[in-house]
Amino acid sequence: MIKNRKSLEEYKAGILEENRAILAQAITLVESNLSTDSELASSLVQEILPFSGNSIRIGITGVPGVGKSTFIEAFGKMLLEKGKKVAVLAVDPSSQKTKGSILGDKTRMEKLAADRRAFIRPSPSGSTLGGVSAKTREAMLLCEAAGYDVILVETVGVGQSETAVKGMVDFFLLLMLPGAGDELQGIKKGIMEMADGVLINKADGENIQAAKKAKTQYRNALHLFPPSENGWYPSVITGSSLTGEGLDECWEMVEKYQEKMLDSGYFELNRAEQRLRWLDEYVQYLLGKAFHEQAKVQNLLASEREHVKEGKISPLTFARKLVNVFFENFQIKNS
Amino acid sequence: MIKNRKSLEEYKAGILEENRAILAQAITLVESNLSTDSELASSLVQEILPFSGNSIRIGITGVPGVGKSTFIEAFGKMLLEKGKKVAVLAVDPSSQKTKGSILGDKTRMEKLAADRRAFIRPSPSGSTLGGVSAKTREAMLLCEAAGYDVILVETVGVGQSETAVKGMVDFFLLLMLPGAGDELQGIKKGIMEMADGVLINKADGENIQAAKKAKTQYRNALHLFPPSENGWYPSVITGSSLTGEGLDECWEMVEKYQEKMLDSGYFELNRAEQRLRWLDEYVQYLLGKAFHEQAKVQNLLASEREHVKEGKISPLTFARKLVNVFFENFQIKNS
Repeated sequence: MIKNRKSLEEYKAGILEENRAILAQAITLVESNLSTDSELASSLVQEILPFSGNSIRIGITGVPGVGKSTFIEAFGKMLLEKGKKVAVLAVDPSSQKTKGSILGDKTRMEKLAADRRAFIRPSPSGSTLGGVSAKTREAMLLCEAAGYDVILVETVGVGQSETAVKGMVDFFLLLMLPGAGDELQGIKKGIMEMADGVLINKADGENIQAAKKAKTQYRNALHLFPPSENGWYPSVITGSSLTGEGLDECWEMVEKYQEKMLDSGYFELNRAEQRLRWLDEYVQYLLGKAFHEQAKVQNLLASEREHVKEGKISPLTFARKLVNVFFENFQIKNS
Repeated sequence: MIKNRKSLEEYKAGILEENRAILAQAITLVESNLSTDSELASSLVQEILPFSGNSIRIGITGVPGVGKSTFIEAFGKMLLEKGKKVAVLAVDPSSQKTKGSILGDKTRMEKLAADRRAFIRPSPSGSTLGGVSAKTREAMLLCEAAGYDVILVETVGVGQSETAVKGMVDFFLLLMLPGAGDELQGIKKGIMEMADGVLINKADGENIQAAKKAKTQYRNALHLFPPSENGWYPSVITGSSLTGEGLDECWEMVEKYQEKMLDSGYFELNRAEQRLRWLDEYVQYLLGKAFHEQAKVQNLLASEREHVKEGKISPLTFARKLVNVFFENFQIKNS
């Protein structure tokens, strides 16, 4: 067993005792790419599963500069005052490049992090999206078993991580800047239609009028778009982390959504569907990983991929060839 | 070789001679699930590849009842009058259930089908989405090699096929009904944001005012949403297959889009990305197919899937188990 690893029982007991240090170590275990860790991690997740699920899971997205961290700090503080325990997780595929983390800056969320009823976890770095989202999902379950009532999952709003986050939360909140216009360039197309709620952020000082106007415009616009399959039209509100305006309203919006969805049965239905989708996606991820790790596949891709891109080889023909090569050369590793 | 199959050279020559009957037989070959056909089909697609690509590919979607077939017939007729050759293909995953086809009704698109410069192909039935879209893509290439200038790909607007169609066309057109309101219930969330153009259909008689109003509303709303990565905001126009109004305008919209995208280089960039995505998706589809066809995987899924759905087994743990079982029991078929 690797250094600094505890036993299954130690992790489980620590988590159920709501020990933040052990929770952090357990998430490190779950995030580990070492094959020696993965069995222990699987067992741990299986063990704590009956204690998970008792939270509201909120995804929060928006372009860089919209004020996500400041909002999460203010929103989290307010939730603590309401007696909630709050965990913040981050999904950040860009960390693949920087090997850093969007929450890596220690000065961010200082006040929230100082409270022992809060738990803040930077995103795992250097992993693929499939891996990150899988691990964020497991981290979420561990946090729930440790008694956190509200899980905030932060994502950057410009990449592919939004779909992953949408697929793991109950409520998806989009932060926007006042003055609907240029800043739209930053948001990826399609994210707006994923939102269960939109908060026009930085609605303070000189921005107040612009924020109110944006709220009206988005409310009208979103009503022209189809509602979710659960019949919900996204709410649009304004808010400010500076003045605290809109934070209560934001929480009321989430509570109202949760109440409606619990009543209609959609809440549990959605979670059940998410579990099955998670299974499918992770199977796909594991199959794709084995495929792309094979040297023969890699070599063939390296030599022919450009020809596919240029339209000289049919993608379908080449895919068949690749998959045949993969299966012909497949060998089970002794692990 | 199976009955009714021609040789590679016969198919190729027939397609390049723009022989509609041979084109139809070639598409049947490509759609075939027989392993004895797949090698010939692959070779054929590879052979005609240098002659493909010279068309504008237009995806057309909208809820049942919006008038897709009537629109396509009128739009297609107009294109024939402009000297274009028009092919209509359909992607219809619902045919899995009915084994029928959305274009199966022989009375539909009668006038268009009667013209020898038009080619209408119902969707292949009884296949999976991955399969259907792969085959529609290949059928598209065959039509292009047979000299069709405009490929119209019809899809039903309520399922998952839109993402597949969006991924294989240059321009994605959404048909809507006048009177933005109740009919929205039918459209799947997210489709609106995929559209490059919206046509408010049935804008005739008593509907004219409502259609004009809807046009204004959607124009304003869509400007609040982010533009595509190519900088394009979807156009919104009104049209009627009855009076012919808007058909010219619709074609101008597509031409304007094409011109802009050719200028910016996005047109070819998008097609190159589509080819690579097609490769990735088809690899994923083939890996998943092999996985789901294995009896041991099927049995394990049948016995445990409900437990995953109910949250009793971690999806991640179960996915790992399934993939291990798959690889341990994997045997290369002698084919």
